[in-house]
Amino acid sequence: MQIALIDSSGPEPVPLNTTGPLIGIIGSGDYSRSLALRLVLSGYRVMVGSRCPDRVVSSLFPDGVEICSQAEMAAAVDGMVFVAVYPEYYPTLTGLREQLAGKVLIDVSNAAQLRAEGQSNAERLAEIFPRSKVVKAFNVVSAWALQAGAQDGSRQVLVCSDHQDSKSSVLQLARQLGFIPVDQGGLRASKQIEEAPLILFPSWGGPILTTFLIFLFFYFYIFLRSVLLPYLDHGANTFSQLPLIIVNQTLPVVALVTLALVYLPGLLAAVLQLYRETKYQRFPGWLDRWLCSRKQLGLLSFLAALLHAIYSMCLTLRKAAHYNLLNEAYQQVHAGLEDSRVESQVWRSDLYLTCGILGFGVLALLAITSLPSVGNTLNWREFTFVQSGLGYAALTLSTMHTLFFGWNFAFLPRSYPYHMPPVFLLALILPCVVLTGRFLLALPCFSLKLTMIRRGWESPSKLCEAEAAQNFDNV
Amino acid sequence: MQIALIDSSGPEPVPLNTTGPLIGIIGSGDYSRSLALRLVLSGYRVMVGSRCPDRVVSSLFPDGVEICSQAEMAAAVDGMVFVAVYPEYYPTLTGLREQLAGKVLIDVSNAAQLRAEGQSNAERLAEIFPRSKVVKAFNVVSAWALQAGAQDGSRQVLVCSDHQDSKSSVLQLARQLGFIPVDQGGLRASKQIEEAPLILFPSWGGPILTTFLIFLFFYFYIFLRSVLLPYLDHGANTFSQLPLIIVNQTLPVVALVTLALVYLPGLLAAVLQLYRETKYQRFPGWLDRWLCSRKQLGLLSFLAALLHAIYSMCLTLRKAAHYNLLNEAYQQVHAGLEDSRVESQVWRSDLYLTCGILGFGVLALLAITSLPSVGNTLNWREFTFVQSGLGYAALTLSTMHTLFFGWNFAFLPRSYPYHMPPVFLLALILPCVVLTGRFLLALPCFSLKLTMIRRGWESPSKLCEAEAAQNFDNV
Amino acid sequence: MQIALIDSSGPEPVPLNTTGPLIGIIGSGDYSRSLALRLVLSGYRVMVGSRCPDRVVSSLFPDGVEICSQAEMAAAVDGMVFVAVYPEYYPTLTGLREQLAGKVLIDVSNAAQLRAEGQSNAERLAEIFPRSKVVKAFNVVSAWALQAGAQDGSRQVLVCSDHQDSKSSVLQLARQLGFIPVDQGGLRASKQIEEAPLILFPSWGGPILTTFLIFLFFYFYIFLRSVLLPYLDHGANTFSQLPLIIVNQTLPVVALVTLALVYLPGLLAAVLQLYRETKYQRFPGWLDRWLCSRKQLGLLSFLAALLHAIYSMCLTLRKAAHYNLLNEAYQQVHAGLEDSRVESQVWRSDLYLTCGILGFGVLALLAITSLPSVGNTLNWREFTFVQSGLGYAALTLSTMHTLFFGWNFAFLPRSYPYHMPPVFLLALILPCVVLTGRFLLALPCFSLKLTMIRRGWESPSKLCEAEAAQNFDNV
Repeated sequence: MQIALIDSSGPEPVPLNTTGPLIGIIGSGDYSRSLALRLVLSGYRVMVGSRCPDRVVSSLFPDGVEICSQAEMAAAVDGMVFVAVYPEYYPTLTGLREQLAGKVLIDVSNAAQLRAEGQSNAERLAEIFPRSKVVKAFNVVSAWALQAGAQDGSRQVLVCSDHQDSKSSVLQLARQLGFIPVDQGGLRASKQIEEAPLILFPSWGGPILTTFLIFLFFYFYIFLRSVLLPYLDHGANTFSQLPLIIVNQTLPVVALVTLALVYLPGLLAAVLQLYRETKYQRFPGWLDRWLCSRKQLGLLSFLAALLHAIYSMCLTLRKAAHYNLLNEAYQQVHAGLEDSRVESQVWRSDLYLTCGILGFGVLALLAITSLPSVGNTLNWREFTFVQSGLGYAALTLSTMHTLFFGWNFAFLPRSYPYHMPPVFLLALILPCVVLTGRFLLALPCFSLKLTMIRRGWESPSKLCEAEAAQNFDNV
Repeated sequence: MQIALIDSSGPEPVPLNTTGPLIGIIGSGDYSRSLALRLVLSGYRVMVGSRCPDRVVSSLFPDGVEICSQAEMAAAVDGMVFVAVYPEYYPTLTGLREQLAGKVLIDVSNAAQLRAEGQSNAERLAEIFPRSKVVKAFNVVSAWALQAGAQDGSRQVLVCSDHQDSKSSVLQLARQLGFIPVDQGGLRASKQIEEAPLILFPSWGGPILTTFLIFLFFYFYIFLRSVLLPYLDHGANTFSQLPLIIVNQTLPVVALVTLALVYLPGLLAAVLQLYRETKYQRFPGWLDRWLCSRKQLGLLSFLAALLHAIYSMCLTLRKAAHYNLLNEAYQQVHAGLEDSRVESQVWRSDLYLTCGILGFGVLALLAITSLPSVGNTLNWREFTFVQSGLGYAALTLSTMHTLFFGWNFAFLPRSYPYHMPPVFLLALILPCVVLTGRFLLALPCFSLKLTMIRRGWESPSKLCEAEAAQNFDNV
Repeated sequence: MQIALIDSSGPEPVPLNTTGPLIGIIGSGDYSRSLALRLVLSGYRVMVGSRCPDRVVSSLFPDGVEICSQAEMAAAVDGMVFVAVYPEYYPTLTGLREQLAGKVLIDVSNAAQLRAEGQSNAERLAEIFPRSKVVKAFNVVSAWALQAGAQDGSRQVLVCSDHQDSKSSVLQLARQLGFIPVDQGGLRASKQIEEAPLILFPSWGGPILTTFLIFLFFYFYIFLRSVLLPYLDHGANTFSQLPLIIVNQTLPVVALVTLALVYLPGLLAAVLQLYRETKYQRFPGWLDRWLCSRKQLGLLSFLAALLHAIYSMCLTLRKAAHYNLLNEAYQQVHAGLEDSRVESQVWRSDLYLTCGILGFGVLALLAITSLPSVGNTLNWREFTFVQSGLGYAALTLSTMHTLFFGWNFAFLPRSYPYHMPPVFLLALILPCVVLTGRFLLALPCFSLKLTMIRRGWESPSKLCEAEAAQNFDNV
C-alpha cells in the first residue's frame, strides 16, 4: 500500500510545541517519518537520528522535526527512543550503547517469518543494549495508521517489556497518540507480538475450511444426482444448471448445516458437564476450539444465507425462467386449460418463502450484533440473549423453511432417482438433532441439574461444597 | 453460555511478571479464573484466596497465579481485592475484616432480582467491612469478556464508590484491562448498577411495542377488508394471502407510519417552544421519552422497510404469481389481444418502484450512520445533518412511493368495498401531517423566532436578556 | 435538534459526590446544563457562574450543582473553568480577569463562519485573559452527546493549548467524561478546530462530485442513444424507460468505473516510483488527494452496485415486464412455436448473474471491513490483504460480469445505432486498463525493483545506501 507522505484528510502539521517532551527516532524511513508526524501532531518534540543526516530529505519530515546524527540524538534525548531500522542492522547501533544506557528503547520491528525457535528482535535488541529498557510496541501499526491518525486498520497496539515502569509510560504514549494499547506482559511475549502480523485471520482458517468442504460435498452430490447421472442415463443435457441453479441449491444447505454446527458444541459441552457432574474439568481441545469458533461459523452461515437470498431473488431474471414460462403458457393454451392454479402449491411456496425471509431477518440481526461496535453497547446478558435466543429462533425458522420447501416430496418415490435422497433431507438431519437436543436439555430434570453444576455445585467429595457454592461466576 | 476456560483466540498466558502490582481475588469460580487470566495478561501478579486452597484445581488457573487461603491472601495483598463470591456468602468473610482494613474491595456481584427497596450488595459489603474502601465495578462484564479480552459483549464497566481515590484507581485498572470504565458517582448508585443486567434493552421496550401494535392494527384491517368480508360476502377464498401477501401489504404501512413517528415529536417540541416562547421549561414526560426513543423507532421503521423490500422481491418467486401469469396469457390468447400493454400502468409501476428503492437507500444510509462506530466518526453537525436532513428525504420519498402506488385508485368507488378505504390512504395521513408541519415551521415567520428561542432568547421579563443571549448552546 | 434536558435513557443524576474535584462553568445555557450533568455523573462537583443567578431556573440543573454569580464561582474554583457563553460576549467577562488568573479556561465555542484571516475565539479569549491558561476543547461535542454520554454523534474531542500541563489535564478530563481526546498541539490550531464543525464531510466532496458527474454523463449517453434519437428518428416512444430502466443501465457503469478509479492511483504511484527510481519524492498534489479518497470512492462504488442490485431484482415486478411476457406468450402461441428456449442465452444470463452476485458479495465484504469498528479488529496486514486482494477480486468479477453481459453483441452491427457503441463497451475501458496495468506490475522485472524501492533502495549517489537499506518502514 503506497503511503501519502502527508495525510491531507488529517489535521495540518501544527507549529512545533517547543515545551512538549522530547522523543527520539533512529532511522529516517517512511515509518520514521510517519511516526514523527504523529508525535508532532500530539504535541511532542521529535529528534531523528540518521547515519548521514545531511543526505536526509528533511522536507519529507513535518516542520520542526530536528534531523541530526544518531549520536547527537542519543545524547540529547533522555526519555524514549524509537528504533525504526531493520533488525538486521541492530548491530550497527552498538556505538550508541553508552548514550542510550538507562533510556527506553522502543522496538517496532516485525518478524520476517514464523520461526519455532530463536529469540525475537526485541530480545536481540535487549542483548545489544543490556543497560537500556527495551519495550516492544507499535509493530502491528502501519505507517499509514500513524499518519491518518488510526482512521483505518487496527488501532490496537500490543506492548510488552520486562521494565514495568517503562512499559506503562509507553502504554501512556500509545494512548496519547490515539491508539488502544494492550499490555501483553514480559518481553518473552515479544516473539508472539512480532509474528502477529504474519498470521492472517488466525481464528478464521478452521471455520472457512469446514464451510468450504460442506459446500463441495453437497455441490457434487447435487451435480451427480441431477446432472451427471441423468445425462449418462438418458442423455439429458442440464449442464447449464452448473453456474447458478446448483450453486443456489447448495448454498441454503451450507447455511443450514453451518448454523447447526454453531449450536452443536454448546449442547455437547452441556452433556459433557451433566455426565461428568462438574464443570471444573477442561473440555477436550477440539471442543474448546470448536466453542471458540462459533462466531466465525455463524457469520459464514449468514454469508451463505445472504448469497442464497440474492441468488433466489435473481432466479426470475434468468432467461431460462423466461423461456420456461413462455413454453408453459404455450402448453396451457394448447391443453385448453383455463386455470392451472394448484392451491396446495400456492400455500407451499408462500409458507416456505415467509419462513425463509423471517429466518434470514433474524440471522441478519445476529450478524449485526456481532459487529464489535454494536456488541459493545450490549451488556453481557443482552448479548447472550441475542446470540442464543435469536440464534435458536433463526435455526428453527430455517428448518421450517426447509420442511415447507420439502413439503410431501420426501414421500414420493420419484424423489429418489438412483436411490439418492433429495438434498433437503440430508440438510435437515443435523438441525433436527440440535433442536431435539436443545429441547431435551430444556426439560426440568436436566436443566435444573445443569444450572446447579454451572453455579459450581459438584457431586460431593470432589470439592468442599461451601467453597463450590459460594463461587461467583458470571455465566 | 459455556466458557472455554482458556481463550485460544487470545494471547497465550505469558510468564508471570514478577514485578507487576499484586492483586487479590476471593473465590475460585469461573469468574475468579477468568479475572485472574486477564490480570496476568495485563502484567499484574494475582493471588487467589480460597476457603480450601488444597481442593482448588490450580491447573484451571493461568500459570503464576498463587492460590492460598483467604487469610494469607488478605494479609499479602495491600492494594485491591476482588470479591468474587455470591453475595449470600459475604457474611462468611467477616473473619478477614482486620486484614482487609484500609484496602480496596471490588464488588463484582449482580442483583438477583429487581427490588424497589433494600440496600445493594455493595452497600451490604461496605457494612460488613466498614474500614475497607468498597468499589462497585465489573458486574456487567462476563467471564467470557474477561478471557477473550472484551472482544464481544459489552466493554463498558460501570464504576461507583464513595472513596474518590479508590474509585479512580479502579477506573485506571479497568482501562488497563481493556475496558471502557464509566464513573457513576457514589456508592448509592451501586443498586442501579447491580440491576442493570436484569433489564434487557431498556430503551427498546416502548418502541417495539408501539411498532407491533401498529402492525397488528393494519394487519387485521387488511385481513377484514380483503379476506374475511369478501369470504363472508360471496365466499371468495383468498386465505392463502395470509402468510405473505397481507404481511407484505402491512409492512410498508408500518415502516411509513413509524418513520413519521420519528419526526413528529421534534415538531411538537418546536411548536411547544413557540407557544411557550421559551425553551427553559421541561417538556412533559411523555414527550421527553418520545424524543429519546426516536433512534429506536427509526431503526424499527428501517427493519420493516427492509422486510418489505425482501418480501416484494420474492413476490415473483411465488407459485401464485406463476399461475396468474399463465392464466392471463391464456386469457389474452383467447381474447386474441395482441398487445395488452397499458402505458399508464407502466409509468405507475416504474415510478413507485423508483421512489421506493431510493427511499429505502436513504433509510439504509441513516441506519448505517446510527452504528456507534460510524456515528463516532461524524462530528455532531454532520450527525444532525444526516439524521434530520436525510431523514426527511427518506420520509418524502416513501410518501411519494405510496402516492404513486395509490395512483388514482383513491378516486374509484370500487376502492371502498364495505365502505373501508384502501390501506394506503390511512398510511398517508400521519406522514402528510408531519411533512406539512415541517414545511410550515420552515417558513421565516416561525423559523426565525424558533432560532431566537433556541439561542436562548425569551420574551422579556422572564430572564435578563444579556444572560439569555450570551449563553452558548451547541444545539 | 431539540435536546431533552435530562436524558432518560442514561443513568439518573446520582447524589453529589462532595469530595470530587470542583469545576466551574460560566453561562447557564443548554450547553452549560448538559456539561454540568455529565460532570456530576462523572463524580465532579460543579459551580455555575451566572450573570443573574437568581433568575436561573436551577431546577433545570442536576441536583447538587451550585448556581452563583460569576465572581463567586471564579473565586471559589481553582482548577478548570468552562467558558460557555458566545464569543461576542467574552469582553463582558473582563471583570473576572483577576480571579481567573493562573486558572485553566476551557473555550468550547465554534466559529460562526469560515474566515481566512483573523484570530480564533480561543486566541481572543487568551488575549482577554493573558494570565489564565486557555485550552480549546469540546467544541465539536453537542449538548446532546454530553447528556446521553456520547452514545451517538462524535466521541472525539479535539484539544489544543500552549500550556502543555493544562492541556494534559483537559485531555484527562475528556477521557474521564467518556470521550476520545485528540491532542492537536498549540493554540494556533484552535482556528482549525473551531471551524471543523462548519465543514460537512470534508473528505467526501470530491469523490461524490466525481461519481455524480460519471452518472450524469452515462445517463445522458444512454438517453440519447436509446430514447431520444430513436424517437426523433422514427417516433419510437420509450420515454417510460427514463425513471427506472435507464437509471439501472447507468448504475452498473458508475459502479464499475468508480471501482476502477479506486485502484488506478495506486498503479500511477507505483509507475511514478519506478520512473523516479525513488520513493523519497512527494507525489504531485492531485495524486496525493486521489490516494486519500480511495476509501470514499470505494464506498460510493459499492452504493451504486447495491442500488443496481436492488433495481435489477425489482425488474420482474414491473408492469412492463408483465406485459412483455404476456405479449411474447401470445406471439409464441400464434407462431405455434413449442419451445422458444435458446441455450446460449441461458448460459449467458446465468453466467453474468453469477459473476455479478459474487462480485457484489466481495464488494460487500470490503464495505464491511471499512466500518471503523471492524477495521480496528484487523491488523494492518489483514487490512491490506482485504482492501487490495479482495478489491481486485471484486474488480475482476464485475469486469467479467460486464463481459458476459456484453456476450457477442459488440460484434453485431445493430449494436451501433447512430454509430454510438453500446455503453458496456465504454464501461469496460478503464477496468481493463487497470487490470492490465496491475498484471504488468506483477511481472518479476517490475515487482522486484518496486519492492526494492519501497524498502528504501535508491539508485546510487542519491543517498548513502547503508542508511537507505536499514530504514524500517511498515509498508
